[in-house]
Amino acid sequence: MKIAILAGGSGTRLWPRSRSRRPKQFLDLAIPNQSLLQETVERIRPLVSVEDVLIVTSRDFVRQTARQLPDVPKANILGEPYGRGSAPAIGWAAATIMRRWGNETMVSLHADHHIARPDLLRQALVAAARVAAQGHIVTLGVVPPRPHTGLGHVQRGQLLGQFDGFSAFTIARFVEKPDYERARQYTDSGEYYWNTGMFVWQTQTILQEIDAYMPQLSAALAALQATIGTRLERRTVARLWRDLPVQQIDYGVMEHTRIGAVIPVEGLGWNDVGDWDSLADIRKADEHGNIIAAEFEGIDTSGCIIIGSGRRLIGTIGLKDMVVVATDDAVLVCPRRRDQEVRSLVERLRLANKEKYL
Amino acid sequence: MKIAILAGGSGTRLWPRSRSRRPKQFLDLAIPNQSLLQETVERIRPLVSVEDVLIVTSRDFVRQTARQLPDVPKANILGEPYGRGSAPAIGWAAATIMRRWGNETMVSLHADHHIARPDLLRQALVAAARVAAQGHIVTLGVVPPRPHTGLGHVQRGQLLGQFDGFSAFTIARFVEKPDYERARQYTDSGEYYWNTGMFVWQTQTILQEIDAYMPQLSAALAALQATIGTRLERRTVARLWRDLPVQQIDYGVMEHTRIGAVIPVEGLGWNDVGDWDSLADIRKADEHGNIIAAEFEGIDTSGCIIIGSGRRLIGTIGLKDMVVVATDDAVLVCPRRRDQEVRSLVERLRLANKEKYL
Repeated sequence: MKIAILAGGSGTRLWPRSRSRRPKQFLDLAIPNQSLLQETVERIRPLVSVEDVLIVTSRDFVRQTARQLPDVPKANILGEPYGRGSAPAIGWAAATIMRRWGNETMVSLHADHHIARPDLLRQALVAAARVAAQGHIVTLGVVPPRPHTGLGHVQRGQLLGQFDGFSAFTIARFVEKPDYERARQYTDSGEYYWNTGMFVWQTQTILQEIDAYMPQLSAALAALQATIGTRLERRTVARLWRDLPVQQIDYGVMEHTRIGAVIPVEGLGWNDVGDWDSLADIRKADEHGNIIAAEFEGIDTSGCIIIGSGRRLIGTIGLKDMVVVATDDAVLVCPRRRDQEVRSLVERLRLANKEKYL
Repeated sequence: MKIAILAGGSGTRLWPRSRSRRPKQFLDLAIPNQSLLQETVERIRPLVSVEDVLIVTSRDFVRQTARQLPDVPKANILGEPYGRGSAPAIGWAAATIMRRWGNETMVSLHADHHIARPDLLRQALVAAARVAAQGHIVTLGVVPPRPHTGLGHVQRGQLLGQFDGFSAFTIARFVEKPDYERARQYTDSGEYYWNTGMFVWQTQTILQEIDAYMPQLSAALAALQATIGTRLERRTVARLWRDLPVQQIDYGVMEHTRIGAVIPVEGLGWNDVGDWDSLADIRKADEHGNIIAAEFEGIDTSGCIIIGSGRRLIGTIGLKDMVVVATDDAVLVCPRRRDQEVRSLVERLRLANKEKYL
């Protein structure tokens, strides 16, 4: 089994901690002193050797990645010259595995998610590998513990069978982020799962599917193939990636493929750490319902998310259900229920030529 | 005319900008790049030479004071070894004036107030000097533009006469900070003025009144008198001040004296800069009613007071009538109407052994 970890994201909704030069995968948002990327690698260590882990990230983040993961071989860190979405990143990783090791079971994970039950994830990945061995492209779906309007969903089709205690189904369809009423119906139906973006397949299978549904990417990968591991690789990627459009594997392959499968997993404690409010599901609240990761002193403060950095003190009076984040050079204050607008705030900073705060 | 400026205060309600080592008189809270202390000196420059200005402050703040006021003679900065309230500070200044220059018109001002109309203040001080020349202890009262529960009030008595266009009255009584209903009655009556703590008297007069009503302080000043300007002064003050109780001139002299007078001043724009909310009366709000002194970007933010420092950015979403203050090592978030509780927050920090943030 070879594992590709996609670590090229940005995470603007977690501003001001997540920054353009240090996005959320490099931050210890879920577990103190362990970045989400490090957490992702720790999670799969019992399954594979670090020699079998590839990290695909931006060229700008290669050094940061290497620093955070000192025992991952440098040759396993693939630095993209341009961010082109998950499909090219996965394609490069698949081509690399194919070239180095031949046809293998390949797992694709995101570097910026938190999982409360890594043991359960590993069991699910082993089961998914068995389904993948039958020629399927397998995604792990999370049985929704509650309605969620911020995530795409996967609807299951027919039962394919039981694998190590997990059920596998064909995929009926992928659906976009639903409104609340629809999300509630999905949760109640028992047929829909959160789309986690975690995949398991055989290298040859995914390359075939890319060839079938994403011909431009397939051609680029074919051109790249012979240069992998040579001095030409970097320059070739730069040339090929420049012309590739941004494409996600979900839309490029998963929505079209006829060999998709979903394995629902319950109680995984999966969280995409997509916004400040999500920390409420990950971190333990104090007796006032506050999530505190800061030097903090509060009067009549409840239900708040208070994040500091360094030795800066955050003092609050009379706050309820607010987010307060302080970094060395920026402070964010906003109600929890409006934390999606952090993205707009970041956009405004960009328009106001305040790039240094991004 | 000699002017004493009291600059020993602390100002905990303006935390986290006002700090134990750099309290509010040293901060540019009202006018950018001019501390309240500097503003106080600038205000009276047209009246007197800086040779005639004494600053009474804590020994700990002498260097800071000298740095902010480079043209004030070092010998004019009196550093108290212990803060003992306004009465000993005024007593030391009065004894110093008496020793250096003899009987003079003396003005006593606070270093941490803002005045929008310094020209009007100077006119009132000149008028007050004429009243003082008749043997009165004169205080300037502010005609209240609105009810204020955070200030003591002075009730006027009989008219003493007109002086350069200002009326002077005897003082009927001093009253403590009123509740709102009472403050409203005071404002409506036209007989009550805000007690500003600005006084004008002749040196001999105030020393006589201290002798009459504050015998312990008077004895200390008598013991100090001969050492003023000598090498013994500092040591003598240290010995005497150690045993003095904390006493304010308002309670120690003004409430007892039979020679008090008040000059009401209208439209002075006087502000004691006592809390964050007070900035709303001093600084101009933007089109959303926000008072901004920071690198700032806000979405749907109105009626807020946003204070930064250095190049730290403050970003807000969906805030109304809040105070957000960020310094290098601390952040405060609280509703404007609860800004009095900042003092309690500071007290909690003290109890929690977080002195470095005070």
